[in-house]
Amino acid sequence: MAAPKSALARRNGDFSEEERAAVYRAIFERRDVREHFLPDPIPDEVLERILRAAHHAGSVGFMQPWNFIVVREAATKGAVKDLFRKANDEAATRYTGERATLYRRLKLEGIEEAPLSLCVTCNRQRGGRQVLGRSTVRDTDLYSTCCAIQNLWLAARAEGVGVGWVSILDHEALKQVLGIPRPVKVVAYLCLGYVSEFAPHPDLERAGWRARLPLEELVYKEQWGRRHDDEG
Amino acid sequence: MAAPKSALARRNGDFSEEERAAVYRAIFERRDVREHFLPDPIPDEVLERILRAAHHAGSVGFMQPWNFIVVREAATKGAVKDLFRKANDEAATRYTGERATLYRRLKLEGIEEAPLSLCVTCNRQRGGRQVLGRSTVRDTDLYSTCCAIQNLWLAARAEGVGVGWVSILDHEALKQVLGIPRPVKVVAYLCLGYVSEFAPHPDLERAGWRARLPLEELVYKEQWGRRHDDEG
Repeated sequence: MAAPKSALARRNGDFSEEERAAVYRAIFERRDVREHFLPDPIPDEVLERILRAAHHAGSVGFMQPWNFIVVREAATKGAVKDLFRKANDEAATRYTGERATLYRRLKLEGIEEAPLSLCVTCNRQRGGRQVLGRSTVRDTDLYSTCCAIQNLWLAARAEGVGVGWVSILDHEALKQVLGIPRPVKVVAYLCLGYVSEFAPHPDLERAGWRARLPLEELVYKEQWGRRHDDEG
Repeated sequence: MAAPKSALARRNGDFSEEERAAVYRAIFERRDVREHFLPDPIPDEVLERILRAAHHAGSVGFMQPWNFIVVREAATKGAVKDLFRKANDEAATRYTGERATLYRRLKLEGIEEAPLSLCVTCNRQRGGRQVLGRSTVRDTDLYSTCCAIQNLWLAARAEGVGVGWVSILDHEALKQVLGIPRPVKVVAYLCLGYVSEFAPHPDLERAGWRARLPLEELVYKEQWGRRHDDEG
């Protein structure tokens, strides 16, 4: 394969084959982890590297709207676990039959097993009333925060640390537990810890809940719904 | 430094020092690129690897709500550039004095210079009415799509491809241009291309628009606003 790249680009900061493979490895071996957490604490310097990775995401208008609340105390985790139980009991009622049985069997969080939780928030007022690039699409601050989370997730994978995103939580109630003020929005509650293994496939794929979609079905050319260059 | 990791975790899929450094390199050297695009086309196999990286983000309920519209035609890019001009003229009126002058001088997109654009969307109805994990926080499908975008961004960096996120666009008008149906939401319009260089710092930091915040100011312990373990 001959990639038609200019010599200039090649000179300027290119990744080696090995470096590129490592980036893809982190991307493909990252998992949403809910089990196999080990009790070993995450050293401060490892946590700092992971958070610094998050902080180096791009953000709309360089707004850097994120904060990170590091939760280690059992009492706090217990309160969050209670919120999960409540939201999950509610969610479970939405399924019937076999699907309900399967739902109940799935492990959807590791709040109390993981040595550390991180609540990632977005301060929607940071940077004042005019944030460059945000006047047209207001939610770009939330989008930036999610990009920070993905950085964090991949850095953690490279550190051997599993991350699980617990989305079944009432965020208003979570704000009460963590003392988060009104203009700040919770984006994610993450559980972090070293793990005995990273599963080869996503849990929900393995459990038969849903299959991975073929990439080619998701890619269009020039227009929504167009698969081939000559269509249309 | 002695990281207290169990032998089990160490045996199981750990990254080497070099691999870990490569992941951090992609994270720290990723840039939101608006200039220095080269005209060299992105080979299909490189684009496919980048899109596959996006597709391997985690998603709420394994929903995989994303689609990718690959835009290469000058006419389509021209129409999008017109949308940018309109939205940007509107945005520029929000600044006065020196700030207005600086705003006007900033290069905020590379729509027509970059050989390829990608519109990343989120189909909010994919997976039916009940998507596991989404009943409590409805926007988790958008959050998943942003995680996919960050995967894409980092994979592109590892391939030597620059990515710029153009957020100053009316998304409803963009949907008209690209034929995107009603239940599908535009999340991002990205410009991709090989570049002559990746800037050492974010453009807005270099231009003096905003400074990077110190990470330690963004990290709290147990509760919002608490910096030290013994406070509170």
